[in-house]
Amino acid sequence: MHEPAGDGPARRLGAAVVGLGGAVATTAVAGVELLRLGSCGPEGLPLAARGDLVPYDALVFGGWDVSADDLAKAAHLHGVLDPAQIEAVAPRMQQLRPWPAVADPAYCRGVTGANVTTAGTPRERAERIRADLRGFRTEQGLDTVVVVNLASTERRPDPAAPALASPEAFEEALDRGDEAVTPAMVYAYAALREGMPYVNFTPSVGADAPALTELAERLGVPVAGKDGKTGQTLLKTVLAPALRSRALRVEGWYSTNLLGNRDGRALEDPDSLASKTATKGAALDALLGYPVEDHLVRIEYYRPRGDRKEAWDNVDLVGFLGHRMQLKIDFLCRDSVLAAPLVLELVRLLAEARRRGERGPQEQFGFFFKAPATRDGRVPEHALHRQERRLLEWLDRTGAPEVVRP
Amino acid sequence: MHEPAGDGPARRLGAAVVGLGGAVATTAVAGVELLRLGSCGPEGLPLAARGDLVPYDALVFGGWDVSADDLAKAAHLHGVLDPAQIEAVAPRMQQLRPWPAVADPAYCRGVTGANVTTAGTPRERAERIRADLRGFRTEQGLDTVVVVNLASTERRPDPAAPALASPEAFEEALDRGDEAVTPAMVYAYAALREGMPYVNFTPSVGADAPALTELAERLGVPVAGKDGKTGQTLLKTVLAPALRSRALRVEGWYSTNLLGNRDGRALEDPDSLASKTATKGAALDALLGYPVEDHLVRIEYYRPRGDRKEAWDNVDLVGFLGHRMQLKIDFLCRDSVLAAPLVLELVRLLAEARRRGERGPQEQFGFFFKAPATRDGRVPEHALHRQERRLLEWLDRTGAPEVVRP
Amino acid sequence: MHEPAGDGPARRLGAAVVGLGGAVATTAVAGVELLRLGSCGPEGLPLAARGDLVPYDALVFGGWDVSADDLAKAAHLHGVLDPAQIEAVAPRMQQLRPWPAVADPAYCRGVTGANVTTAGTPRERAERIRADLRGFRTEQGLDTVVVVNLASTERRPDPAAPALASPEAFEEALDRGDEAVTPAMVYAYAALREGMPYVNFTPSVGADAPALTELAERLGVPVAGKDGKTGQTLLKTVLAPALRSRALRVEGWYSTNLLGNRDGRALEDPDSLASKTATKGAALDALLGYPVEDHLVRIEYYRPRGDRKEAWDNVDLVGFLGHRMQLKIDFLCRDSVLAAPLVLELVRLLAEARRRGERGPQEQFGFFFKAPATRDGRVPEHALHRQERRLLEWLDRTGAPEVVRP
Amino acid sequence: MHEPAGDGPARRLGAAVVGLGGAVATTAVAGVELLRLGSCGPEGLPLAARGDLVPYDALVFGGWDVSADDLAKAAHLHGVLDPAQIEAVAPRMQQLRPWPAVADPAYCRGVTGANVTTAGTPRERAERIRADLRGFRTEQGLDTVVVVNLASTERRPDPAAPALASPEAFEEALDRGDEAVTPAMVYAYAALREGMPYVNFTPSVGADAPALTELAERLGVPVAGKDGKTGQTLLKTVLAPALRSRALRVEGWYSTNLLGNRDGRALEDPDSLASKTATKGAALDALLGYPVEDHLVRIEYYRPRGDRKEAWDNVDLVGFLGHRMQLKIDFLCRDSVLAAPLVLELVRLLAEARRRGERGPQEQFGFFFKAPATRDGRVPEHALHRQERRLLEWLDRTGAPEVVRP
Repeated sequence: MHEPAGDGPARRLGAAVVGLGGAVATTAVAGVELLRLGSCGPEGLPLAARGDLVPYDALVFGGWDVSADDLAKAAHLHGVLDPAQIEAVAPRMQQLRPWPAVADPAYCRGVTGANVTTAGTPRERAERIRADLRGFRTEQGLDTVVVVNLASTERRPDPAAPALASPEAFEEALDRGDEAVTPAMVYAYAALREGMPYVNFTPSVGADAPALTELAERLGVPVAGKDGKTGQTLLKTVLAPALRSRALRVEGWYSTNLLGNRDGRALEDPDSLASKTATKGAALDALLGYPVEDHLVRIEYYRPRGDRKEAWDNVDLVGFLGHRMQLKIDFLCRDSVLAAPLVLELVRLLAEARRRGERGPQEQFGFFFKAPATRDGRVPEHALHRQERRLLEWLDRTGAPEVVRP
Repeated sequence: MHEPAGDGPARRLGAAVVGLGGAVATTAVAGVELLRLGSCGPEGLPLAARGDLVPYDALVFGGWDVSADDLAKAAHLHGVLDPAQIEAVAPRMQQLRPWPAVADPAYCRGVTGANVTTAGTPRERAERIRADLRGFRTEQGLDTVVVVNLASTERRPDPAAPALASPEAFEEALDRGDEAVTPAMVYAYAALREGMPYVNFTPSVGADAPALTELAERLGVPVAGKDGKTGQTLLKTVLAPALRSRALRVEGWYSTNLLGNRDGRALEDPDSLASKTATKGAALDALLGYPVEDHLVRIEYYRPRGDRKEAWDNVDLVGFLGHRMQLKIDFLCRDSVLAAPLVLELVRLLAEARRRGERGPQEQFGFFFKAPATRDGRVPEHALHRQERRLLEWLDRTGAPEVVRP
Repeated sequence: MHEPAGDGPARRLGAAVVGLGGAVATTAVAGVELLRLGSCGPEGLPLAARGDLVPYDALVFGGWDVSADDLAKAAHLHGVLDPAQIEAVAPRMQQLRPWPAVADPAYCRGVTGANVTTAGTPRERAERIRADLRGFRTEQGLDTVVVVNLASTERRPDPAAPALASPEAFEEALDRGDEAVTPAMVYAYAALREGMPYVNFTPSVGADAPALTELAERLGVPVAGKDGKTGQTLLKTVLAPALRSRALRVEGWYSTNLLGNRDGRALEDPDSLASKTATKGAALDALLGYPVEDHLVRIEYYRPRGDRKEAWDNVDLVGFLGHRMQLKIDFLCRDSVLAAPLVLELVRLLAEARRRGERGPQEQFGFFFKAPATRDGRVPEHALHRQERRLLEWLDRTGAPEVVRP
Repeated sequence: MHEPAGDGPARRLGAAVVGLGGAVATTAVAGVELLRLGSCGPEGLPLAARGDLVPYDALVFGGWDVSADDLAKAAHLHGVLDPAQIEAVAPRMQQLRPWPAVADPAYCRGVTGANVTTAGTPRERAERIRADLRGFRTEQGLDTVVVVNLASTERRPDPAAPALASPEAFEEALDRGDEAVTPAMVYAYAALREGMPYVNFTPSVGADAPALTELAERLGVPVAGKDGKTGQTLLKTVLAPALRSRALRVEGWYSTNLLGNRDGRALEDPDSLASKTATKGAALDALLGYPVEDHLVRIEYYRPRGDRKEAWDNVDLVGFLGHRMQLKIDFLCRDSVLAAPLVLELVRLLAEARRRGERGPQEQFGFFFKAPATRDGRVPEHALHRQERRLLEWLDRTGAPEVVRP
């Protein structure tokens, strides 16, 4: 059932995306097509110069979405890309239609659609997803498939639920339909069972549930996550280490976000919002080495912006002899424009990790995440420059891939 | 004439400051006294935890200024510290009166005063300064003296002037009064001749004139500089590497500074301003790896702020598929509050470098500077996190100090 | 029981303040003393040049607070004024100690203290307040007393409660202790019964409960309110009319406030917060003439700031041919510094209104308020420039004062 | 030679634009076409609801430009409008080609082109322009023609030049080619001689030269100007009156502008820049009633923005008891999007003024200008709300138009 770990970059690399019709996914898909046409440069792609990874134009997309719109139509609705950019790649985008999603409004109230499979037990849904994945691999003749979660944020399950404690408990929970098993976990489980690497770019709990982390280790499948680090948290993990370098004490940090896309709407649900702010808040204290009591993080659904996000930060600093200073940052960014190229890099990196025989949480990919997965409860590294160094060291490491133990 | 390189931290460490009555110097002096009283914490002091450096309370201050005001009075006038803070250390601050400065309005038009020695040739002025330094060492019983330039920015001399090409040419220029020899260089020369380490915290040309760099190497004296990295450039050297990490292309960077202290007034002189903007502008292209054509740096003398500086930056970014974003940073900082603790660290580090027998430009102190000195024309490292790593590696390096070759 | 409406400015004007120990009140009291000493100018006082109002140094302060600290001590704790400013007026500030407050934690959970009278029915508390007011007038030999509400924001009562429908119903509710009768209303009632003008500078419901508005009319007492317009709303009522003048359509307006003083703490109680955001949100749609669907107002209790408030606004605009623009405003203001002088002006204006025989809600004082009181359900004027014109026209209106009907 | 003042709104109203190919003009022309198509709303048009003015779709455009590109092509190059918007009106825009401009690089170094007439004396150029205007009126069957200056800013002539002192001196100067006579004045002169109203939307000296103001009065032609009030100055004239209302003293005001369009390039010429900053700086002191010593206005040519201008302001305020506050405004605006609809309104208003027989500087149009023209050296009104009131009062004034005295 496992894919063999090959000797060189795979030739055709599949990306099976949960949330294929969303703003990030459609931007990523269009981006690959525009790169193929040579009509855009390497902006936003941190690893564009790496010849040791699968090239972007070897990527083949498929995936699920609650909307059945083809990807050209979906991209138009999101308004991220210029109409002319969508036009240029419309023939290929129109051919891509999402498979029916396994969604459940109980876990993500803000987002729904008609292209949804709700019938059956979680076990049956998992089987359905596995069948989708096998079909995708076969029909497209793919060497490797990476499963990527780009769906809207789900509510946070109880992390101590017995159903999530071990692979065995999880299997039973799948059968009986335990409410601790969220849709995101069903996708992650299906990927692992198919031996396909899994990336969680959202704050939802996916393969980081203990049962699934353990399963990934056992099955020898690499996983990475979670919650893409794109805007405000990116800057936080850049600035906080610098403030610490200069011994400027952070007395308070106030962060607010304005965003008006589908993800923002999902976050109007307080349960989903709780998932999001949890991953956003974790990094600061770890980076500074002391707790910041007045660390406030707000996310506001504000429609005039659409996908054009604004992240405004205010930092209150104490310097020499107790004197106070303020630092304010206003990042007028674009959520999907920042996220999509990172997704492309992660798909390529997970394929490389698979090739090298890596298994379980891939700590060296923490560079991309707000809440980097670690093994054995280790505190993750959040500082961007140290994350980058670790990633590059891993990429530059040569030698034979580890043996994959079944 | 040289101080011997000792075996352990010096017990009494002198700091001879050019510009002792200025806002940075008075803040540094008061800071040492307040630290002695235990009335403030380690904020702003990056190396506060290092037991291997001379402790702050071993520092003894002396120096020159164009104003003869005692340091308590000077501190009141600058308005950096709270009146209560100055009051707490007034007895010691009042005893400190600057020695007459070797100033020349031809080099720094904005700043002048009554406590000035203008008579004589540069050679005679250099001798005067050397006598001041020897007297300071002897009277205070100092193990080591570090000379620190904190004076207002001078106009930039012609770097290709023959007088600055070699130690020999410089000696002749001192005798004949060549206009390429600025007051800052006279101080630097005097320090080197006394075997005392020299730090240039300003954008003026000091020991980085080729003749003096060569002299420092020959005499075995460590020197460091130049132009303290405190506010806007600090953030630039933190953010630019991060933007490069994420492959976000910088299309333009606009920086403006509002400041109203004595340094700001000095920069109303276009010649001094040219020195300043030169050191501020250099880092960005090196950090990014490509030239930013629209990189504008403005410095405005704006009196309502006094020492409370405001640095406003706008960065125009290009991301994935050519989409544009903006990043704005507003740093409401305090010039002297940021600078003074760095000066204290540099004095301690130069004493340590002296002890270790280091000579010439100390690249490992680039962490503190906008235009870090390098040897042999090497391009300096500007990224704060790499500068910090290099500094800490140097500090952590054990083993016997290098032999000082005379 | 009514004060006679006199012929000229009163000579000794009393201000009886609910919340006398708060940041605004202590700043106002110290301000009057500093003005008396001639050590400050007319900044912040819009009507400083009006000779037709009672002079500032004729003001005499008294009032209630949940803390019994004298006003010098209270001012030190608030940290609004410089220590030297408090020192200069300490002898007089120390003599002022608040009377025990009629507070009730059920209405304002965030703020409490030891100097509180909780015993008795609302009726008994009202009698107690009336006795305080009569004592104040007699002991200080005051011509007029104005009662000012500066207490922390209370939760909002049900505006349709039968107890608030008429003076008669209110009287009965006082006797039986109806929960619709809040502490703020008890103070307002007491003031009216004593024939003393009443100003509500807070968002709490005071004399604007229908029963009390009617009572003010019947008794011939002028009242004004509510919720002082100092920072963010001030700017909103300046900018919105200008945007309308230029036909720039407001698509969204996001406002956030950071503040760390006692008022901020009170607003951590969601019930109090609801009162506050209600008065802040009302103005915008009225000013623009259409509803802004994405108008978000946030208030954050953020301790590093203390009384130094920050109001950050972002406005999304649509201009010619549908093109979008953004306007951002960051007001680094000081809550009490803005509010205190307006309180002084209002006390003087209410005394003048009393002298002129005005009764009930004083619409011409809308210049000072976020939610200006109107008569007969009229929509209030919010545009600052029109409010100012109306105020000045009223002040400039000459002729005999109206006859006061008992 | 004069047009008769009619009885009702003209049916076909010509706008002859100096700088027809510029960003503002092409936006205005496209805007009229898009309004005709019903594909945009009244945003940006302050007088859209006035039925007493000539309707927008009665406007007919012609004019001069240094580039001969048709207006569709020019609009594409400016990048102000969406490609789809230009496409929608391309058939009509393509038919519009600018007439050859009377330009002179000596007066505006930054901007030049191939579609230029340089031959001849100023007199001959004026005759050429008059012929263009007569041809335009006749060929298009226009009832009224208004001449609008939208060309890039010229250098400022010596206002005391004898050639500009009287109509007679000006006529002689035209004949002999006096350098005090700038291209902008030649256009203004031609308009006046043709009896056509003239609007100066730029900071250049046009009909506000004394000789031409006098000529406008004598010939009975209404003129208006100068320098459209669109972005930063608009906000300044809104905020400054409000700060004065609240007695908040302005200690400093720093304004910087980033813009990257053709106008920005023209302002790289220091002589043109001097014209611009002069009109921008004048208003503040008048609005506040006292001089602001630290009022700095900067304009930066910054290409990444193109027509998307950013105006950043910082205001230092002093409030009650001398306490300091800061107000910062960041206006991410669009130069041409703000300007173009005001140009449309001015053309309609000047036609109405012509109809009413108004002559000389039209003070009631000060609402639109940074440096409103006044008669007899009066200080102009700068406060936006008072300007608006005056404009609306004029519009609402009924009764027979004044008799035009020839």
